[in-house]
Amino acid sequence: MLKVVQDTYRLPDYEIALWQTNLFKALPQDVSNSLLTSCKLLELPKNETLHLQHDTADWFYFILSGWVKVYRETQEGDEAVIELLGTGDFVGEFAFLEGGCYTSDAAAAEKTTLVKMPAFLLKEAATKSHATALALLSGFADKRQRQTQELEGLKLQNAPQRIGCYLLRQCGGKEMGKHRLNLPYGKSLIATQLGMKGETFSRALQKLKKATHVGVTGRKVQVPDICALAEFVCAGCSNEYPCKDVLLDPRQSA
Amino acid sequence: MLKVVQDTYRLPDYEIALWQTNLFKALPQDVSNSLLTSCKLLELPKNETLHLQHDTADWFYFILSGWVKVYRETQEGDEAVIELLGTGDFVGEFAFLEGGCYTSDAAAAEKTTLVKMPAFLLKEAATKSHATALALLSGFADKRQRQTQELEGLKLQNAPQRIGCYLLRQCGGKEMGKHRLNLPYGKSLIATQLGMKGETFSRALQKLKKATHVGVTGRKVQVPDICALAEFVCAGCSNEYPCKDVLLDPRQSA
Repeated sequence: MLKVVQDTYRLPDYEIALWQTNLFKALPQDVSNSLLTSCKLLELPKNETLHLQHDTADWFYFILSGWVKVYRETQEGDEAVIELLGTGDFVGEFAFLEGGCYTSDAAAAEKTTLVKMPAFLLKEAATKSHATALALLSGFADKRQRQTQELEGLKLQNAPQRIGCYLLRQCGGKEMGKHRLNLPYGKSLIATQLGMKGETFSRALQKLKKATHVGVTGRKVQVPDICALAEFVCAGCSNEYPCKDVLLDPRQSA
Repeated sequence: MLKVVQDTYRLPDYEIALWQTNLFKALPQDVSNSLLTSCKLLELPKNETLHLQHDTADWFYFILSGWVKVYRETQEGDEAVIELLGTGDFVGEFAFLEGGCYTSDAAAAEKTTLVKMPAFLLKEAATKSHATALALLSGFADKRQRQTQELEGLKLQNAPQRIGCYLLRQCGGKEMGKHRLNLPYGKSLIATQLGMKGETFSRALQKLKKATHVGVTGRKVQVPDICALAEFVCAGCSNEYPCKDVLLDPRQSA
């Protein structure tokens, strides 16, 4: 069960975070007021389910901290991560455009704090306010670009290149020399996100280490030569490092 | 080079097709008038390039007949098909939301006839007209659902299941018994679309035939038992046959 941590009419910290989003800036004042007076703060322990695929999409969420895994599951229990959303992302904000139901399952991938808001208010806002529709369009465009990039990677890159690409994107656009970084979450979640089984991931990581001398111990990563890693990774990609979307996305700069 | 077949101020046949789209229905009258007076009809032979990734997106297109392959290519010439668009689809209509450049290459996958229209008029329309923004949002939602379904397939289904899924989607929602269909384009394009090399595709097709007794000769396909095919395919998917989007998409009913 979701645990309601706080239920109040003034949530200053969350308001600040919400007002930094393009979506909130574009909302008509009466809608943002309604959302702020009806929102609830939720704290989800790791692995707690937020919603299931095909559930009626009564709520959308804003992530204050942590990670939400949006995924689909076969009857046999195999899991495909569709997207992994972090601080500053919305969850389920497009469901009202997709038949009014969630199109995937969602669960906390780490301990996660979210703001929960009624979806019907967002739907109303999109219908009433041109600025809201434009903000949603811009959000859709960002998501589509990320998905297109992922589709390309799945079709063109081999497994070591996909892991290398993931690490490279965590380098936040740094172009030369060595770089140290901390993985934002565990390796098993990264493997699922990249569409690999555990053993495939381990083998591919070994190949990547051999080819580029990248070091990975727990969540600590050492990239001895960003150029060499980029050369290895981008041979299987239509873009060149640094990718434009990484430079524009503050969440990628570890 | 693109061949301009006709350049006229009245294009009745194309108008009829354009007016059937949600996007055109939502355009302010002055914008639809401007689009219809400035549009050009293009006929592209197979494999002719329409635009390249990173080109300035001066034009968007509407497909009257044929297939357009939207794809990305590595420097080494490997190709990832991002989407395959057919009759009634727009091409490049979202580029103005994605930095004003095309995010992928596009080429005619078969002989294709298109209407070519200035992209700045669409951008203006989205900015001026709430209804246009909502129509674009709805179009984005459809594309996102297709991409999400494809991402899921790439991560969860094995190669024979992916080919089977492709064939099943061509059955247009028919639930029982046997079904004959014609592939809309050649097997090598289907292989690229599914992210497989030619030899992987051939091996996977053999496995699919063995498991489900599907027959494929040239472009002719015989499915002796739709239920058996669905059972084989949908074991690797979160959805059940018939998929909702197939039932809603007239292009899927062969």
